Amino acid sequence: MAGSAQFRLLPQWIRETRGQTLQDDLLAGLITAVLLVPQGMALAMLAGLPPMLGLYAGILPPILYAILGSSRTLAVGPVSVAALLVANALAGQGLEPGDPAWIAGAVTLALLCAGILLLMALLRMGELTSFLSHPVLSGFTSGAAVVIILSQLPPLLGSDQGDWLPHAPTLALGLGCLGLLALSRSPLQRLLRRLGIGERLAMLLPRAAPLLVVLGATLLTALLALPEHGVDVVGDIPGGLPSPVLPGLDGQQLRDLLPAAIVISLVSYVESVSVARVLAWRRRQRIDSNRELLALGIANAGAAVSGTMPVAGGFARSKVNFDAGARTQFAGIVTALLVALAALLLAPLFKYLPLAALAAVIIIAVLPLIDLATLRRTWRFDRADSAALLVTFFGVVLVDIELGLLAGLVLSLAIFLWRTGHPHFAVIGRIPGSSHYRNVDRYEVETWSDLLLLRIDESLYFANTASLEQMVARHVADRPDLRHVVLICSAVNRIDHSALETLEALVENLGEAGLVLHLAEVKGPVMDRLRHSGLLERMHPGQVFLSPEEAVRRLHSPERAAVRSEGRA
Amino acid sequence: MAGSAQFRLLPQWIRETRGQTLQDDLLAGLITAVLLVPQGMALAMLAGLPPMLGLYAGILPPILYAILGSSRTLAVGPVSVAALLVANALAGQGLEPGDPAWIAGAVTLALLCAGILLLMALLRMGELTSFLSHPVLSGFTSGAAVVIILSQLPPLLGSDQGDWLPHAPTLALGLGCLGLLALSRSPLQRLLRRLGIGERLAMLLPRAAPLLVVLGATLLTALLALPEHGVDVVGDIPGGLPSPVLPGLDGQQLRDLLPAAIVISLVSYVESVSVARVLAWRRRQRIDSNRELLALGIANAGAAVSGTMPVAGGFARSKVNFDAGARTQFAGIVTALLVALAALLLAPLFKYLPLAALAAVIIIAVLPLIDLATLRRTWRFDRADSAALLVTFFGVVLVDIELGLLAGLVLSLAIFLWRTGHPHFAVIGRIPGSSHYRNVDRYEVETWSDLLLLRIDESLYFANTASLEQMVARHVADRPDLRHVVLICSAVNRIDHSALETLEALVENLGEAGLVLHLAEVKGPVMDRLRHSGLLERMHPGQVFLSPEEAVRRLHSPERAAVRSEGRA
Repeated sequence: MAGSAQFRLLPQWIRETRGQTLQDDLLAGLITAVLLVPQGMALAMLAGLPPMLGLYAGILPPILYAILGSSRTLAVGPVSVAALLVANALAGQGLEPGDPAWIAGAVTLALLCAGILLLMALLRMGELTSFLSHPVLSGFTSGAAVVIILSQLPPLLGSDQGDWLPHAPTLALGLGCLGLLALSRSPLQRLLRRLGIGERLAMLLPRAAPLLVVLGATLLTALLALPEHGVDVVGDIPGGLPSPVLPGLDGQQLRDLLPAAIVISLVSYVESVSVARVLAWRRRQRIDSNRELLALGIANAGAAVSGTMPVAGGFARSKVNFDAGARTQFAGIVTALLVALAALLLAPLFKYLPLAALAAVIIIAVLPLIDLATLRRTWRFDRADSAALLVTFFGVVLVDIELGLLAGLVLSLAIFLWRTGHPHFAVIGRIPGSSHYRNVDRYEVETWSDLLLLRIDESLYFANTASLEQMVARHVADRPDLRHVVLICSAVNRIDHSALETLEALVENLGEAGLVLHLAEVKGPVMDRLRHSGLLERMHPGQVFLSPEEAVRRLHSPERAAVRSEGRA
Repeated sequence: MAGSAQFRLLPQWIRETRGQTLQDDLLAGLITAVLLVPQGMALAMLAGLPPMLGLYAGILPPILYAILGSSRTLAVGPVSVAALLVANALAGQGLEPGDPAWIAGAVTLALLCAGILLLMALLRMGELTSFLSHPVLSGFTSGAAVVIILSQLPPLLGSDQGDWLPHAPTLALGLGCLGLLALSRSPLQRLLRRLGIGERLAMLLPRAAPLLVVLGATLLTALLALPEHGVDVVGDIPGGLPSPVLPGLDGQQLRDLLPAAIVISLVSYVESVSVARVLAWRRRQRIDSNRELLALGIANAGAAVSGTMPVAGGFARSKVNFDAGARTQFAGIVTALLVALAALLLAPLFKYLPLAALAAVIIIAVLPLIDLATLRRTWRFDRADSAALLVTFFGVVLVDIELGLLAGLVLSLAIFLWRTGHPHFAVIGRIPGSSHYRNVDRYEVETWSDLLLLRIDESLYFANTASLEQMVARHVADRPDLRHVVLICSAVNRIDHSALETLEALVENLGEAGLVLHLAEVKGPVMDRLRHSGLLERMHPGQVFLSPEEAVRRLHSPERAAVRSEGRA
């Protein structure tokens, strides 16, 4: 193997690492790790797993992504929506959180996600996810955030899910953490800025708040011996690094978990690639969707081998990484090493780590996911988009997370199909004194009694052929002088076989009524198609004109007066 | 109630009935009845019902349709595809053909179809069926015909479905009937024409062949006492007219049969309306889809009340009715009365009516439904359409009739969505010496280093926003002189919220790279939308131009040379 080929096997960013970028990456990696450690433990709890597994999801997977991924700044690890979907899928299997079978199920899901993402990479199916529209994703994310917050209320309040009576010490601790975390966002930033601390530092320092709050709550719990007063804590758990496991594979369970794994894979991929694209644009870098599928697939395989749940590129965490100045994936490796250090050292703290503090960390982390802005904007711009968003949101919150997403997907496709199935048609006429042709309903134009110019504002395909036929029939009726019907095809980008048959039927049916069908402004690719179809021969004496103007010049008999003539005679 | 309003309640055709049309309708009604009597009995057998119920399906339902329908010549009654779907659905319920529970199931299906069609009429959902494309319907009909023919081989050959050993006397009788029926088509017509019989009579006389063949086979069976030699016959069945029944309703069975009833309703409606439309065009009449849904719904209610299976407007039979000169639905009423007469008189014949003769009648009737022409044409015109056709056909024949239709429907929609999700984009330039702009890949045109004109050949919606973004990113890369990007929107008929967001992101991302985004040739309805969205303000200093020519005149700096200039400098 030649030296240059070997060099190619190394990721691009290694070749670009320099002194300054190294320093930037070190700082960004540190800040992201400080955020990830408490969040990772909290997300593991959300997924019904021991907190240590949340840290494990932040060690091997981001290192694998760093080597393979095409994004320089994507922070891969445990994410909230995937954690929720894992808990949802395993609860649906009748398992109990924390059981060995539950943990094995989470590992199986990570393995399935790895397989699905790698298969998608192999089949180059990344684009499939573009069928999840922005409003549907917005409704899904908002709905998932609401479900997550609701799921975290019992640990926050110290109540069982059966009765909703809060436990006073837990409630005080939980609300205290929540309040401190809320204050650490914009209020703290404003304060730091007023104190004359630099803009960047004012933005980054609050990122340490979750870690400080969790450490503080743990200290308080230990000092006041709160577990003796009924405050739930994580408890004794051995620390250490993940040791490679091979998950036992159960064919039946693989089949049962497959639908959930597909949803987790698609949503993880969409979340990862969207944030990767946004960040790449800012520095003129490119994201390769196939590389992303491959890298995320391998990262999930890494999660499975580490014995933990599926991972993805997190939206908020990647932005923190980017804003902290990350230049390359070296920052991701720094984060992973620091998280590994935390996994080695922090286990003794778990004995007094209160669940309420972790619940507060999750709630504050997912609160910004509730996206009212998109709802407001779609409401103004396109009610159908709002409908898709709302159906997804309420489906996720009230019915089922996966069914809600599916309902939104189906509804948004149905709306699109319905609209293309009911295209806009316009009778057009000439703006007097010009060769411009416009809709007779919008402009004062001249038309002719022997000639009908009909513009089709859609590609013709099976779902709208009936509309076309009915519309021609309607416009032809009660016009005894009519001789020529010209279909203006400037907006027809494609014609399928059903549409071709309909055009042939129109030629024949109009012919029996003594009318001739013509076409005008047919696009190149459509014309190529029609040439091979035999339609043009059947249309005889009908013709294909370059423009409506040419059609009028060749077809209109001057002895027939214009029907509506505003300009010249 | 005023006299004129009462008059309106009568169907249109009654007011138009005159001496000549009455005579035409009498003849057409007779010819259609002669065809319907043997076919009706055979179709009942196909549906696993006593032959008498096939006749019942041809009495009350067409009379109800005649009063309510908007087609003058549609012949409503038992049809082959619905009969097959009925047998398929009831066998799927674990019932045995001919059992009282089987017959009750067929009646329940008719009732469900009535309800579904009336609901569709109420919700004006007739257009929904336009999502069944021509190739899918062609594949479905061909597949159903093949399944029907395969199902009729055992009675034709006198073999059990277990072993395929034919029974010699039955085989001889069956093949004899099949041969005579085959000869009665074009060969007999050619002979009659050569004998100097008028063209119309030569076309119509062969229509009596099924009845004559069935009567002949019955006579032969009786004379040779064939049942004693093992030839299966219909046997003793009481004749008479249908007496109104109210089917007992079983909630569980209704739910179980609902999917099948939906398929039967949709397919029946599509078959009825397509043939009604074709025939209406020929005489400049109009078909009202909602009236059709109502009339077919009531006709199916009539079938349920008559204790028989669902009905539809038959393709072949309606054409016979039309070709025989039917002018109004009076012909349909004549047919119904003659079928009622047959039901009263023919029952004694059933004792010796051989099943093999009925099987031959069905096979000959469905043979023309196998549609190779559409396969051949779609293969030449659009391979994706062929794929939808073939998937439907093989799905119907090899897997399941309803699943095959569903697979074709889903595939054809997926192909459409896939194509709109991967639209054609063209970089355009000016044809030298003109103000015409064309694709740089198809024409020799001039372009400019500071200006990119990009034509979007598709409406913009969520599934193609990623394509748009990637395409702009690709064309912008490596063009250091580029200052302006103009999107030509002449083929953009709609913009949804996802696309709006993508355009905003493009404005921002291009802005950060020092580029300005403009639009040109935006259609009226799209412009109305964009005006309310705030995009136009965000685009500043980007503008919306009327044409590419205007964009070039306003944006191109003359000191920068044209990149490729073939014509003037």
